[in-house]
Amino acid sequence: MKKKQWGSLVMAAVFLCCLAGCATVKPGDENAMVIREQGSFSAGGTVMETGGTYVSQNFNNWQPYPAGQTYHGDHASVFYQIPETPRALAMAFLHGAGQSARSWQTTPDGRDGFQNIFLKRGFSTYLIDQPRRGQAGRSTVEAAITPVADEQMWFEIWRMGHWSGGSPRYAEGVQFPKDENSLEQFFRWMTPNTGGFDAALIARATASVFEKSGDGILLTHSQGGLPGWMAALETSKIAAVVSYEPGNYLFPEGEVPDSLPSRTGALRGVGIPMVEFMKLTRIPIAIYFGDYIPEADEISDDLGAENWRVRLELGRRFVDTINTYGGNAVMVELPKIGIYGNTHFLFAELNNLELADHLSVWMNENGLDKRD
Amino acid sequence: MKKKQWGSLVMAAVFLCCLAGCATVKPGDENAMVIREQGSFSAGGTVMETGGTYVSQNFNNWQPYPAGQTYHGDHASVFYQIPETPRALAMAFLHGAGQSARSWQTTPDGRDGFQNIFLKRGFSTYLIDQPRRGQAGRSTVEAAITPVADEQMWFEIWRMGHWSGGSPRYAEGVQFPKDENSLEQFFRWMTPNTGGFDAALIARATASVFEKSGDGILLTHSQGGLPGWMAALETSKIAAVVSYEPGNYLFPEGEVPDSLPSRTGALRGVGIPMVEFMKLTRIPIAIYFGDYIPEADEISDDLGAENWRVRLELGRRFVDTINTYGGNAVMVELPKIGIYGNTHFLFAELNNLELADHLSVWMNENGLDKRD
Repeated sequence: MKKKQWGSLVMAAVFLCCLAGCATVKPGDENAMVIREQGSFSAGGTVMETGGTYVSQNFNNWQPYPAGQTYHGDHASVFYQIPETPRALAMAFLHGAGQSARSWQTTPDGRDGFQNIFLKRGFSTYLIDQPRRGQAGRSTVEAAITPVADEQMWFEIWRMGHWSGGSPRYAEGVQFPKDENSLEQFFRWMTPNTGGFDAALIARATASVFEKSGDGILLTHSQGGLPGWMAALETSKIAAVVSYEPGNYLFPEGEVPDSLPSRTGALRGVGIPMVEFMKLTRIPIAIYFGDYIPEADEISDDLGAENWRVRLELGRRFVDTINTYGGNAVMVELPKIGIYGNTHFLFAELNNLELADHLSVWMNENGLDKRD
Repeated sequence: MKKKQWGSLVMAAVFLCCLAGCATVKPGDENAMVIREQGSFSAGGTVMETGGTYVSQNFNNWQPYPAGQTYHGDHASVFYQIPETPRALAMAFLHGAGQSARSWQTTPDGRDGFQNIFLKRGFSTYLIDQPRRGQAGRSTVEAAITPVADEQMWFEIWRMGHWSGGSPRYAEGVQFPKDENSLEQFFRWMTPNTGGFDAALIARATASVFEKSGDGILLTHSQGGLPGWMAALETSKIAAVVSYEPGNYLFPEGEVPDSLPSRTGALRGVGIPMVEFMKLTRIPIAIYFGDYIPEADEISDDLGAENWRVRLELGRRFVDTINTYGGNAVMVELPKIGIYGNTHFLFAELNNLELADHLSVWMNENGLDKRD
């Protein structure tokens, strides 16, 4: 590129940045990102100490000699970016089962994920690898990593469609990109647990992220849903929770709905003391569910439909319970507002800008997108 | 902040960005980063397929039923950022043992790492989690994750100092930050292998990163050194290699130096055919080593000194061999140019801007920082 050209391009980009930085929400802006600060840190976690005395300069050919040594583990690992003129509330993102921060980055077909979209809309973003996952792999408990072929099961559980004759059969009208390269990139997002899933531990580490970010909005996905609700009990710095197809929910003790039978396993909410539950009535909460989910009582032969039918239904009851106690929760069932074809990875699909726009409107209505 | 103020602040930042974007190298600029594009992708890897036929909608309560299913693994995971007006060559970063992309992000004391420093100097950056590490955790081989307390050993192996009486005793004049929080953050960078270390596999995945980035400079650290040299044999898109304290080296078959005895284990280079070795003579190569390393024949009681004494010495012979065959390699021993106190994590220490400046000068001298 010639030197004369880039100068005017930079100024044009700068003009667009100014628009994104100071004007009202402009959904879909694809201008450059002006970042004041970015980096990584660990949040939460524990320290194991082995008894005995450390012998300095112990030569033993790299064999473990833990006496007197420490091991830091069970923290979350976070990558954050702060734009030039950030909004008052940050956005922190917690992935689901078998996933990492990558869920929120580039979409399978190579477009901006929620990280970039909301950075461009002026939010500081904090992407979490939960304890015992991804770059936060140091676990205080043992684990076995076993490569077991399972991607066709996930494809179906996550409602992309069915798999037969060795090929994907995408659901009609699906928003997941249908090309081979996108599916390959998507499958490679998966990364294993390096220690058992522990919702309470993840909740504490997630709450600790907000000590660094300051007040913010927590976005969760799938298995991240339950520790996300629990994190909101741990800190008042979580100003709102947005959950994409959470796997489970909290209820006041004594008000946990009866177990919902499903062919992928019965689902039962988690009971907590009322004084704890009431904390969830003091912040705005939004839950999103995608397409291809039957009604609550329609037992199905479809793996994905069967898994999410009960989680959607229990989510409705969670929202009702929060609102009964004076809270502000909303359940957004996308097909009911005319948005069709979304799978379990709704925020990363072809219409993710439309979903981001819906979220931006909700955040605006709830005063969550203020400048200061 | 008032609306009038931020406008002028943005313009001031924009002015600084323009300086960084178009002017010559300005070491130490701490202005904002203007990013045209950023995201993540997977590079390299393989696909395992289990024999048999996948039974769509197989309900078995989440137990594995791999028949007819696939498993994508052994890829690298990469986070990349492209500034507004990038230089012609990208920079890709490969971590060392027990580490991830986090090595190159924020320093232990919370300042800009090489990711931000070189992004601000106009380079596109590609940060790699190697296959079977961090966010690239899906491994095609089994592994056991075992929490063993070992941090005091690493503290000594990496030459921060010694550990005695339950406390760190930092080396005199060390560039590693001495506060407790920095050490805690640093220890939490570590993340385990989720499958055996395989240099050839890592080399292929690293080479694949350059298919996406285009021609670029590969920076490696420690255990990443050997697969880094191997990656440069795999693709002509690697235009230069910079290695921080590499663990091992390649030599022409028949010219591998005799094994160098060390109390942390004997070190021997890896022999490759001369036609392969000659590829390393066609690109600029720089190797950096820090402080606290004795001369080659000074057998030591110090764990760190003993481990790096032989790796530095073999590095000198590697550089000599490359240059004997007409190459362009340089060994930078920091104390010999008046830069003292660096440990094995030299690029992330208090004087990392000084080290970045030295690298910028070398890149400039070798024509690696051109605009187009």
